[in-house]
Amino acid sequence: MKVQLDCFPCFLKQALIALRLGTNNEVLQETILKEITDYIKTADTSMPPAYTTTFIHRKIRQMLGGDPFAEIKAKYNKLALELYDKLTNITSNSGNPLLTASKLAIAGNVIDFGIFTSIDIESTINRALNNELEVDDSEEFIKSVSEINEILYLLDNAGEIVFDRILIETLIKANKRVKAVVKGSAVINDATMFDAEEAGLTGVCEVIDNGSDAVGTILQWTSKKFQDEFNEAQMIISKGQGNFETLLHSRKNIYFLFQSKCRVVSKELGLDNGAMLLMKG
Amino acid sequence: MKVQLDCFPCFLKQALIALRLGTNNEVLQETILKEITDYIKTADTSMPPAYTTTFIHRKIRQMLGGDPFAEIKAKYNKLALELYDKLTNITSNSGNPLLTASKLAIAGNVIDFGIFTSIDIESTINRALNNELEVDDSEEFIKSVSEINEILYLLDNAGEIVFDRILIETLIKANKRVKAVVKGSAVINDATMFDAEEAGLTGVCEVIDNGSDAVGTILQWTSKKFQDEFNEAQMIISKGQGNFETLLHSRKNIYFLFQSKCRVVSKELGLDNGAMLLMKG
Repeated sequence: MKVQLDCFPCFLKQALIALRLGTNNEVLQETILKEITDYIKTADTSMPPAYTTTFIHRKIRQMLGGDPFAEIKAKYNKLALELYDKLTNITSNSGNPLLTASKLAIAGNVIDFGIFTSIDIESTINRALNNELEVDDSEEFIKSVSEINEILYLLDNAGEIVFDRILIETLIKANKRVKAVVKGSAVINDATMFDAEEAGLTGVCEVIDNGSDAVGTILQWTSKKFQDEFNEAQMIISKGQGNFETLLHSRKNIYFLFQSKCRVVSKELGLDNGAMLLMKG
Repeated sequence: MKVQLDCFPCFLKQALIALRLGTNNEVLQETILKEITDYIKTADTSMPPAYTTTFIHRKIRQMLGGDPFAEIKAKYNKLALELYDKLTNITSNSGNPLLTASKLAIAGNVIDFGIFTSIDIESTINRALNNELEVDDSEEFIKSVSEINEILYLLDNAGEIVFDRILIETLIKANKRVKAVVKGSAVINDATMFDAEEAGLTGVCEVIDNGSDAVGTILQWTSKKFQDEFNEAQMIISKGQGNFETLLHSRKNIYFLFQSKCRVVSKELGLDNGAMLLMKG
C-alpha cells in the first residue's frame, strides 16, 4: 500500500502528536517540525507510508534526545493490565475462545495515537464481541491454526500487547508454540522488549525482536535472524495497520488482525474508518 | 493571530484541495505539494497563517499556470445568485433588515473550501436567523452604522459576495455610501473584480480592489490607494476569517463578520468550530 498525497498532511499531524508528548518547549517543537518537512519533500511515493514515518520518528527521537512515547506506553501497559482478568474470563467462558481472543486482540488495536480511556476501550471491546468483523476470514484462520504447530506473532502497540497476550495464551492452551516479535528499538508507541516484560508476555512465550526501529515491518531493515523466522514460519499473525501496510502480499499463510484507522487505508479497502479486520494476506 | 504548529498540517491539506481542483495530473500534484514544504520549513510563526498561505497559493498558481479555483468560484456565484430573491425577501420582511442582512452575510461566509450544496447553505441560513450569534456586538454595530455616512466593505469569497450584496443594498437603502473591496488578483476562492461583476455587485456600489493577492488583508502588501481608503474610512466591515486574522487590532471602528472555521482560531476565541461572529475589532 503506497503513500497517498493525503498522507502528507497526516505525517505532520502525527509528528506534532509525538513532539507534544516529548517536550513542552514550543521553539524546539517548531524546529523539529520544520526539519521534518525534508522527509515529506523527498518522500518515495512508491513505498508504503511507513517508510516516510520511520525517517520522521527517527529524526524526532534524535532531536529530542529520547523516546517521546515512553511515558504513555507505560501508562497504556498499566491500563490494559487492569483489564487482563476480565478479558481472560470473557475468553475462557466463550463458546469459541480462539475467535473471542482474536476479536479482543483486534479491539486492543484501538490503543494507538488517541487518548486511551477505559470508556473508549470498553465500547471497542463490546463492538468487537457483539458485531461481525468488517473483513472476516476467521473460519480460514481457525482452520489454519488447527493445521499447524508454530506461529510467529508480530506485535504492534504497547498496551495492546496485553490483549495479544490473551490470544497467545489461548493458542498455547491449544498446544501451539508461539514466538512473539517486538520492535528492535522504540518507534511511536510500538511494543519493545521492555513493554513485553511490563505486559507479562515474556513469561508466557518466547519473545524476540525484529532488529529494526521501522514503523510496521520493513523486511529489508530487519535482522537476518528475524527474516529467517519470517520466511520459515508455518503461520504468521500480524497485528496493526503498519504491519498490514508493509507486509500485505509478502508471503503465504499470514493473517492481519487490525483496525483500519486512517481514511486513506479505509478508502483503499472500501471500508468505513475504524473497521475491524481479520484478513488473510 | 499568529501561526500555530497545528496550522502546518493544515497548510498541506489546503494545498491539496487547491491542487486537486486545479489538475488531475497526480505527478504534478505531488511535485507541487513537495515544493510547498519549503514554505512550511521557512514559515514565520510571528505572522498570521495568511502570510504562509499567500506564498503557498502563489506557488500553486504559478506551477499550475492558472487559477485552480476559477471554475468553482463561478459555480458558487451562480448558486448564490439563485438564492438572491429569497434572501432579499427575508431581509425586507424582517423587523430589523440591517441585523437580518448582517446575519445572512455571516451565514454566507460558510461558502469556503467545502462543497457548497443548497442543503448546507439552507441549514446555515436557518442557524444564522434563528440562533444568537456566538459573539454578538450587533447593537454597537447598528449604532455605529447610524452615526456614519460611508462604509468600506472588505469582501471575502466568491458566492458569499451575493450575500454581501444584500447587506450592502440594505446599507444603501439606509442612505449609506458603501465602497466594496475585492482582491487585486486571484487567491483561493476570494472574490476578485470578475466575481463582483458576476454577482451583480458592481451595479450596486463602487467596487475597488486592494492591489494584492494575499490571503486576508496584509496591509503592507496592498496598494497605496487601498491603504489610504483603509486608514481614512469612517467604518469598516470586514468579512471572513482571513481578514479577521490579518486585521484584528488594526484600527478603530472595524467590525468582523465571519464564521470561525478552523480549530486553531476557534480555540483561540474560546468558541466551538463553526461559531458565527459579529465582533467589534
